[in-house]
Amino acid sequence: MNSIDKLTEIFSKFPGIGPRQAKRFVYYILSRNGSFSSELVTAVENLKKEITQCAECQRFFVYPERSRGAKLCSICADDTRDSSMLMLVPRDIDLEAVERSGGYKGYYFVLGGVVPILEKEPEKKIRINKLQETISKRKNLKEVILAMNANADGEHTADYIKEQLSTAYQGKALAFSILGRGLSTGIELEYADPETLKNAFLHRTK
Amino acid sequence: MNSIDKLTEIFSKFPGIGPRQAKRFVYYILSRNGSFSSELVTAVENLKKEITQCAECQRFFVYPERSRGAKLCSICADDTRDSSMLMLVPRDIDLEAVERSGGYKGYYFVLGGVVPILEKEPEKKIRINKLQETISKRKNLKEVILAMNANADGEHTADYIKEQLSTAYQGKALAFSILGRGLSTGIELEYADPETLKNAFLHRTK
Amino acid sequence: MNSIDKLTEIFSKFPGIGPRQAKRFVYYILSRNGSFSSELVTAVENLKKEITQCAECQRFFVYPERSRGAKLCSICADDTRDSSMLMLVPRDIDLEAVERSGGYKGYYFVLGGVVPILEKEPEKKIRINKLQETISKRKNLKEVILAMNANADGEHTADYIKEQLSTAYQGKALAFSILGRGLSTGIELEYADPETLKNAFLHRTK
Amino acid sequence: MNSIDKLTEIFSKFPGIGPRQAKRFVYYILSRNGSFSSELVTAVENLKKEITQCAECQRFFVYPERSRGAKLCSICADDTRDSSMLMLVPRDIDLEAVERSGGYKGYYFVLGGVVPILEKEPEKKIRINKLQETISKRKNLKEVILAMNANADGEHTADYIKEQLSTAYQGKALAFSILGRGLSTGIELEYADPETLKNAFLHRTK
Repeated sequence: MNSIDKLTEIFSKFPGIGPRQAKRFVYYILSRNGSFSSELVTAVENLKKEITQCAECQRFFVYPERSRGAKLCSICADDTRDSSMLMLVPRDIDLEAVERSGGYKGYYFVLGGVVPILEKEPEKKIRINKLQETISKRKNLKEVILAMNANADGEHTADYIKEQLSTAYQGKALAFSILGRGLSTGIELEYADPETLKNAFLHRTK
Repeated sequence: MNSIDKLTEIFSKFPGIGPRQAKRFVYYILSRNGSFSSELVTAVENLKKEITQCAECQRFFVYPERSRGAKLCSICADDTRDSSMLMLVPRDIDLEAVERSGGYKGYYFVLGGVVPILEKEPEKKIRINKLQETISKRKNLKEVILAMNANADGEHTADYIKEQLSTAYQGKALAFSILGRGLSTGIELEYADPETLKNAFLHRTK
Repeated sequence: MNSIDKLTEIFSKFPGIGPRQAKRFVYYILSRNGSFSSELVTAVENLKKEITQCAECQRFFVYPERSRGAKLCSICADDTRDSSMLMLVPRDIDLEAVERSGGYKGYYFVLGGVVPILEKEPEKKIRINKLQETISKRKNLKEVILAMNANADGEHTADYIKEQLSTAYQGKALAFSILGRGLSTGIELEYADPETLKNAFLHRTK
Repeated sequence: MNSIDKLTEIFSKFPGIGPRQAKRFVYYILSRNGSFSSELVTAVENLKKEITQCAECQRFFVYPERSRGAKLCSICADDTRDSSMLMLVPRDIDLEAVERSGGYKGYYFVLGGVVPILEKEPEKKIRINKLQETISKRKNLKEVILAMNANADGEHTADYIKEQLSTAYQGKALAFSILGRGLSTGIELEYADPETLKNAFLHRTK
């Protein structure tokens, strides 16, 4: 395979990118001068060098000095946060979205994906073993918030996790919660589904 | 103007219909046999005959026997509902959506529209006078739920109504509430805005 | 069925309209005052009164004085047009589009639809008998232009018509042509299919 | 800037990619194991090594043995093609699309872009000097085919090139042509613009 086809193949694996757009990316790199592709190579190489995975929440973060002790991200290293709450999110980008919203002050755990309905090997789709380890270590933990996408796969992932954790922590008083349903910004009443409307009424604010 | 152009003009006023689609409607009627257009004419004529506007909530409803007393729709005529709550909705179709969701058991008032931002004559856009009348008559009323679309015009309409009603009912203990924000069905965390995420966390359910 | 449901059902049959939008149309009519629905009724009634179908090309047109002789539309009545050419179009609206483009000066015939692939009763989908009559009467006719949509159903309709007419007019020297393929306005080379590009090159203009 | 932000910035420059999707690409790379990013780095490095730009048509192509003589792509090196025709295309990907269509057997020149309307430095947007060199060297050249996208920028680019070449080759008998307009695959008559319909009729095929 020549290098145009090879790079097209790699870009085709990027989320949301088909073979046609992947090829446009390759031609875009070709059309730029040599320093652009050098910059790209350097940035990809630095990514693996500078970024490490948090030993606690499993998110990726910039870790400039690798030598010093435990690899904790800034959130997990912050002991002023509320240790009674752990929010489970599918991906790094979801953690960032919740953190940006400013409402939550507990800790996180990044599952690394979702468990689709009918998935035969759910334990390969999310970090369920790491999650069980994390929970067993967190002594003050009282509430696990299942922050899933509001769709069928999200609900299925929540069900799977609850089932796995319930059997493991039967004795422990561990509460599970899910994110509240209601009107997302931009939604019109006419197009909202019954569950959304029901919850929007239930969670009305004065 | 000939009748093709005239009818095209009328259909162009229908919500979401441009001149091109309006013309397709006209040609569709022409392509059907005569009984189709007779059916259409009869249905439009019956609409105005059979339908009346509820004296209370202002929604349109089928009212077979015009002669009998007050014109109340089935919801306003149902005195087992919770008279302490009045939900304000922009349109008939929104009332139907909320009612179908099954969670709300109070009464409604249909505003007949929204007040867009920068609107100079807001009192012509919604039934604000009728609303004030209705509220002054409802002795048990404790909570007015502003069920608006989750967008800028919706928020502006809510602000306008609160302002109008506050000055009128200063003495009365009238609570205002708005529908809860949260994850609408189908929303992914990554694409949810900060306010939605904040409220989804706040309104999490166990 | 009440009149809201009845009228919703009728509007649902309009091209491109689903039940939800149909209902919005009904509520729109209700929200307008009485004169709007009267206008609508009058326009629909006038449509059937004023409009007639051209005895030649089968299109619908405004025919103010019904009494006088043959019912011909302005195009078919215009004997300065080129009688050697007959363009077959699926619908009235297609005839209007071609006529507006200004390039064609022959006569038309409106088929009244298309013949979808796998259609079992093609003779019920288009006016094939009327077409055969029309062609047998047109003595100077030399070319039949099959002006179909550039999709699979369009090609199938063209094939069906050619087959039907060929057996009927075997003796007659009747040429068939189809509209030229090439770049439609707005198309980018990258997204054009091979056939379009091939024809765009073949039909290049100097 | 850390390496996540840096790589996000680079991916944001890719055609059609915004900052949000660029970040998803970065996290995708992070979520894959180390061999994926090594593969990506190797493919980008090979791209610049293996690919060279054709000295004639300016397209990028795989050139395994750099040492041997003139750097010509397989099309420009093929002397059985028709040297009387030169087709100008905006980008490599357009050349590929035309070549795949199989109808054209002359040579190509890749402009490297388009000249947008109101562009102040058109000579920086396309390889106009290289084009003039190429044309002055091609002794048998009779026709220059301006294969532009069927939009305003495409037309403007064609106008700019014709103007530039006309002054330079006034003596020479050089014909310019543009790709034929007509119905692109998938287009319906009703939605075709007048120019497209006019040309579709003009270029009808028997």
